Amino acid sequence: MSEQAEQTSGDHAVVLLSGGLDSMVCAGLAREADRTVHALTVDYGQRHRIEIESARAIAANLAIEDHQVVPLDMRLFGGSALTADIDVPKTGVGDDIPVTYVPARNLLFLSLALSWAEALGARDIYIGVNALDYSGYPDCRPEFIAGFQNLAQIATKAGDQGNQFTIHAPLQDLTKAQIAAEAARLGLDPAMSWSCYDPQPDGSACGECDSCRLRKAGMDEAGVIDTTDYAA
Amino acid sequence: MSEQAEQTSGDHAVVLLSGGLDSMVCAGLAREADRTVHALTVDYGQRHRIEIESARAIAANLAIEDHQVVPLDMRLFGGSALTADIDVPKTGVGDDIPVTYVPARNLLFLSLALSWAEALGARDIYIGVNALDYSGYPDCRPEFIAGFQNLAQIATKAGDQGNQFTIHAPLQDLTKAQIAAEAARLGLDPAMSWSCYDPQPDGSACGECDSCRLRKAGMDEAGVIDTTDYAA
Repeated sequence: MSEQAEQTSGDHAVVLLSGGLDSMVCAGLAREADRTVHALTVDYGQRHRIEIESARAIAANLAIEDHQVVPLDMRLFGGSALTADIDVPKTGVGDDIPVTYVPARNLLFLSLALSWAEALGARDIYIGVNALDYSGYPDCRPEFIAGFQNLAQIATKAGDQGNQFTIHAPLQDLTKAQIAAEAARLGLDPAMSWSCYDPQPDGSACGECDSCRLRKAGMDEAGVIDTTDYAA
Repeated sequence: MSEQAEQTSGDHAVVLLSGGLDSMVCAGLAREADRTVHALTVDYGQRHRIEIESARAIAANLAIEDHQVVPLDMRLFGGSALTADIDVPKTGVGDDIPVTYVPARNLLFLSLALSWAEALGARDIYIGVNALDYSGYPDCRPEFIAGFQNLAQIATKAGDQGNQFTIHAPLQDLTKAQIAAEAARLGLDPAMSWSCYDPQPDGSACGECDSCRLRKAGMDEAGVIDTTDYAA
């Protein structure tokens, strides 16, 4: 997470690529940093299959050499509006952690990324979390990312042998508008990415869920054109 | 991990059940503590499918109400003699972490257990790691288990809301002989469990890999009869 780690770490990196705007920009930044990118998309049984297709489109656009879509069916566990038949809230971002929270999702995703990184001999992992314009998920916060980086050292053979894993969260302190501006700067079309929690039958984004609201407001503020088809 | 946590935590527990001797005894101890057990077996593409069948037999023997076998194909990542076509060492337990190490396996397994526990509303997780008679895997050590328990608090909505997750590792400080003696005390037949890293074509255990060596020595020392069929 430090500049020093950035400069001394290896060339290969595992990048978590969900198919959303944030992970698209995160992958673009890893590319810009001249990483050889190994993109990891988890097919966790999310209701919105369009996320997986967006991840594939982004990987193709960025000419990512190695993209794995790993099936891990979290529907077995239940408990989230993103994997079970629970209504997605549409009244705006509130103070509480919403029902779209998926139990321990980023911990699982980072653990998968770490396992793959260790097998590859890579020491760098990128994740597109941000803790400003977000839904309040606990596993997006800086203390979680820092805690995971510490645990990676004692959880692995590579860490035990003195290698330093670095978890890069380059969007951590950016607003959604800044992330939208980064997409534009990197030449990445936002319409390649998918943010909506409740895709409509006609293939449009709902425009009213937390994720659509944050995305639309960010694009507006940044003055970035978003050709995404919103139902509302 | 403390007695106090033990007494104040809820009735339901997620127990990692690999099908080996240690996880069998661990599940038996959770049962003895009057837990309602939700057993989790990860089908991670291990070469030895007999482990999964042993887990099913143990779950049935312990009358476990809820047993999930979750597919998660770690062969995608490679890097271990347990998932790839790499020879299993048979010259005895050495000083180095051996090729049977699976990258970040226990971190992944505990993350899955935590996700399921949170969805269930359970606060207790059992894992049968031990750090005395073992292969030197970094993710079996007490500092890893303690680190994971700390991270669980900041990785989850339940933790954020002040609930305490407890990672129970009741075999942590036991020798293999003590674990064998616990199996006998709990009335669990060791032959239900599977330890061997290199099952033979005729269905017998090799008798020479680290896992067989540790198991045989522990049984001998404890004076427990092991009806497992060893090739050597």
